[in-house]
Amino acid sequence: MPAQSMEELVSLCKRRGFIFQGSEIYGGLQGFYDYGPLGVELKNNIKAAWWRSNVYERDDMEGLDASIIMHRLVLRHSGHEATFSDPMVDNKKNNKRYRLDHLVKDQKADVLARVAELMGQSADNFPALVAALNANPAQASTALREAGVRDPFSGEIGEWTEPKPFNMMFKTTIGPVADEDSYGYLRPETAQGIFTNFKNVVDSTSRRLPFGIAQIGKAFRNEITPRNFIFRVRELEQMEIEFFCVPGTDEQWHEHWLEKRLSWWEAQGVPRSKIEILDVPAEDLAHYSKRTYDLMYDYPTLGHEEIEGIANRSDYDLGSHTKAQGELGLVAKVEENNDSVAKLTIPHPETNKPVVPFVIEPSAGVDRAMLAVLSEAFTKETLENGSERIVLKLKPHLAPIKVAVIPLARNREEITSVAKAIKAELQGLGLGRVLYEDSGNIGKAYRRHDEVGTPYCVTVDFDTVGKGEDPALTDTVTVRDRDTLAQERVKISELSAWIQAKLR
Amino acid sequence: MPAQSMEELVSLCKRRGFIFQGSEIYGGLQGFYDYGPLGVELKNNIKAAWWRSNVYERDDMEGLDASIIMHRLVLRHSGHEATFSDPMVDNKKNNKRYRLDHLVKDQKADVLARVAELMGQSADNFPALVAALNANPAQASTALREAGVRDPFSGEIGEWTEPKPFNMMFKTTIGPVADEDSYGYLRPETAQGIFTNFKNVVDSTSRRLPFGIAQIGKAFRNEITPRNFIFRVRELEQMEIEFFCVPGTDEQWHEHWLEKRLSWWEAQGVPRSKIEILDVPAEDLAHYSKRTYDLMYDYPTLGHEEIEGIANRSDYDLGSHTKAQGELGLVAKVEENNDSVAKLTIPHPETNKPVVPFVIEPSAGVDRAMLAVLSEAFTKETLENGSERIVLKLKPHLAPIKVAVIPLARNREEITSVAKAIKAELQGLGLGRVLYEDSGNIGKAYRRHDEVGTPYCVTVDFDTVGKGEDPALTDTVTVRDRDTLAQERVKISELSAWIQAKLR
Repeated sequence: MPAQSMEELVSLCKRRGFIFQGSEIYGGLQGFYDYGPLGVELKNNIKAAWWRSNVYERDDMEGLDASIIMHRLVLRHSGHEATFSDPMVDNKKNNKRYRLDHLVKDQKADVLARVAELMGQSADNFPALVAALNANPAQASTALREAGVRDPFSGEIGEWTEPKPFNMMFKTTIGPVADEDSYGYLRPETAQGIFTNFKNVVDSTSRRLPFGIAQIGKAFRNEITPRNFIFRVRELEQMEIEFFCVPGTDEQWHEHWLEKRLSWWEAQGVPRSKIEILDVPAEDLAHYSKRTYDLMYDYPTLGHEEIEGIANRSDYDLGSHTKAQGELGLVAKVEENNDSVAKLTIPHPETNKPVVPFVIEPSAGVDRAMLAVLSEAFTKETLENGSERIVLKLKPHLAPIKVAVIPLARNREEITSVAKAIKAELQGLGLGRVLYEDSGNIGKAYRRHDEVGTPYCVTVDFDTVGKGEDPALTDTVTVRDRDTLAQERVKISELSAWIQAKLR
Repeated sequence: MPAQSMEELVSLCKRRGFIFQGSEIYGGLQGFYDYGPLGVELKNNIKAAWWRSNVYERDDMEGLDASIIMHRLVLRHSGHEATFSDPMVDNKKNNKRYRLDHLVKDQKADVLARVAELMGQSADNFPALVAALNANPAQASTALREAGVRDPFSGEIGEWTEPKPFNMMFKTTIGPVADEDSYGYLRPETAQGIFTNFKNVVDSTSRRLPFGIAQIGKAFRNEITPRNFIFRVRELEQMEIEFFCVPGTDEQWHEHWLEKRLSWWEAQGVPRSKIEILDVPAEDLAHYSKRTYDLMYDYPTLGHEEIEGIANRSDYDLGSHTKAQGELGLVAKVEENNDSVAKLTIPHPETNKPVVPFVIEPSAGVDRAMLAVLSEAFTKETLENGSERIVLKLKPHLAPIKVAVIPLARNREEITSVAKAIKAELQGLGLGRVLYEDSGNIGKAYRRHDEVGTPYCVTVDFDTVGKGEDPALTDTVTVRDRDTLAQERVKISELSAWIQAKLR
């Protein structure tokens, strides 16, 4: 049974060292999180699983790792300077600022209904209501006031301004002189680094259509109201693919990627039954999108929210970043670009004529993936003896610690030396982290490793070193299975093979 | 024979898809680089080798992955707001700004000698000269003008201002309202995320002294004059360890880490003979340092420059970030901290009394590691037939591609299907990237894979599928060794074991 509430997860993550609030000792920084000793392993395992499946196991993919800070012209021509913004409203009473849609969504049902009524909309169609509020700023301000929309900070009815767009990109000055051209942006998505390197990748790899470029990396969004733990943050990590194909084959590839991605989520322990596929209605599509599937995972407390978007971006992106746009017969409507120095075309595989490919973009969030994986793995069980345990039933390839090797007495050299040798041997198998665990008694250690999802605990005791009651147990260890709780005595000489067979 | 010049490396990196200029299609962004399809693999392999050696193979280390944007108070109390700056001078004639030490270093010998003379210094002791220039701004300005220091941009003698400090941190506004408190910094080093999470890690892992925390991640420095390819950049990646130990044992641990790190570099193909250990003289030590070893690698063109610093930071960092500083008997001189909410102590392993540990910090740059590894691996050879080849003799665990599987004819299904099956089988071994290579003829493919350091090329030909001249060769493939050029016929059924034996 997966996690029942976000609170359960937050508490586990803090207690066991998965995730901490960023800059916590100075009161914390809203929207920023630090991944602790176990969080970094789980995160790296998720990223490695994605890279293996999408880069290594395919024959049509290249990898990339572009820089985070980008030239302002990249983000101008991508459309982000003009459109990557959220409407926000101020409460004149206390100068607090809110994202309009979040503010309205957080109101009580009767207030929400009254706002909708004043805007001539229905409260049941929330996207349409938000669109109406954005499109009519003066009317929106009046509606918020008349409906009695409350300020979440003060709890009082606010004196609301008209909604104004707020660009969510982080900006910074580059170089020693702060003049009007010497700034850049922290990328709001990794995708743009792929588009701007399209020609470099094609030239250095001789790729032909269809092929993709995959990238994992940080992206930054100055969210007005970050919230829901690592679900909506200001510093996030993305796993993005831009898959380039011949125009006309794009719809087929779109379906291909939808299927591939659902099957990948399943392999990480996030079943299809928990993901709703939202075929985004035409009126809600981003300006670059021909069609988009949003994968909506059923998060605890939050309900169905986006875990991945799979968009058919047509030839919008390469068309926006290319020079000589006029010659290329672009399908997408793009802004004029007189800054780019590169022609972003590739020979058509049949005619050899230069073509601007269409792009399918499966774009997933690492942090949201982590939340979903943790949520699905989280299990509360009542044991036979009536006691309760929390266990993370993570897929073994995602478990932060693969095996914990526990010396039963931490100050007995004959036991610790055997335990350390076993740890070193198992570590050498290259399966991931193996922990030498001597931080508490055996009961505490088992409980801890259940909670962090360690598939196997190996215990070295007095029997192992021939000082127990049963001489037949010399040179054997106890192996405990996380899920079944079964304990088995295994010969040290056979342990590596035993573990390998179980974890593969 | 390693690379003879930086130019050779830059050219190879661009041509073969290791490294591209950031935001290149918009004219490039100085100090920012993008890692291409092979660069990302090499970089990931270096990071994995470091993590394996420093986290997995030790029993006294935890990992961490903290956020890049940090609270301004973290960087205030770390000392970066006050001291992370370089002196710079402006040329009033054209408003160009330069880092003082770089400007002076780039002058012709006679001009440099004249500057030194005017400052009462010797040109042979460059650090002392820079210190004198910084300490006497008015005299420095006069000296630069009188000595005829030229502007590298215009080539003309400049009208130089007095040197002024320039803080190298990137700053950005956080949240929707830009007031005086709503900014943060992009971390200039990963280290601070470790110090601020010290208590979180101790609480969630029950660690006792001595133990370390390791982290790999991006750091940002607004260098005035980024240069020398990926050597001095504005966006870099670091591999840092903060090793916490009982005061009094710090000197021993410092030696331990010096030895460990040199042996790690050797395992990556960077021999000790190419690294000079600089025991930084007391007068050049950073304010937090009790003693520092700089590892100076002999880079092509640049000569000996820092590849890693191993500093004994005493109790400066935890002492600077802790509350209740007065009670803790700190050894280091720290600024007062009334902002921190955490006491950064840990029980002394013998007395159990709270103690602020000393810290040993081995801090290496990923980009500089990549440059050194590439430089050592770069080899130009004259073959028996008189032709020349470039080959990257990378250690197999670092090679971006482990095996290339080449179908001799790319449109013959009986050959390509066998090649694809072999690729999938070898990929499944989990050794790293295996490439299905059908981008050119066999000679070109071999040349390409020599240049990118692929240890083995496997070729599937007509003999393999029983359509060649020798029926005995059916179900065998040719395996070519990168370094010896030897070609061996191996049975497909034995190929996995053969490759595994060679690459382990």
